[in-house]
Amino acid sequence: MISIINLEDKIKEISGKPFSPIEVARVNDQVVRMALTEGEFHWHRHTNEDELFYVIKGEITIQLRNQPNIILHEGEMTVIPKGIEHCPKSLEPSYILLFEPYKLMTIGD
Amino acid sequence: MISIINLEDKIKEISGKPFSPIEVARVNDQVVRMALTEGEFHWHRHTNEDELFYVIKGEITIQLRNQPNIILHEGEMTVIPKGIEHCPKSLEPSYILLFEPYKLMTIGD
Repeated sequence: MISIINLEDKIKEISGKPFSPIEVARVNDQVVRMALTEGEFHWHRHTNEDELFYVIKGEITIQLRNQPNIILHEGEMTVIPKGIEHCPKSLEPSYILLFEPYKLMTIGD
Repeated sequence: MISIINLEDKIKEISGKPFSPIEVARVNDQVVRMALTEGEFHWHRHTNEDELFYVIKGEITIQLRNQPNIILHEGEMTVIPKGIEHCPKSLEPSYILLFEPYKLMTIGD
């Protein structure tokens, strides 16, 4: 059975739970996850995996060590390369998609 | 250098070229591609790779053999499993993201 995933429905599932990604879709050995971002996460890195951030609602700032922050608005994405320490934060409740290997641990290694 | 990708900018790049995906972002051994869909593509399959379709503007119908069509509206996604023959079409110009292995050939195997 091939199912249709509606992102507005997924948004309803994660309201009130910031930085707790849920699985949206599995594709090959990858996964699309959705997270509510609100406030600040913690500094972390993924040793072996790049991580794609895509803002579907709101705005997110990805803080980086020794380089300028990345500010993403709705409809914008970026890829944080493996090994780069980062710390996401959002002033207002925002919703992002993450495209990443299934084995990636959102909290960092 | 970590860059920001704006999808509205990417849409401008592909106007007038249906079913000719461009690369939006590389992440690990995967790629996010964007395509304008307008009219009908051709029937094809990907023997070894699942393919994720995500509509960011408009609507797309993914025709399938011997099972109901999948109709995706803006904000909806689906995964076509490897080996499943499919044929996308759109009545009106629409824009989709594809999340798939870099080696996947959009035209099919």
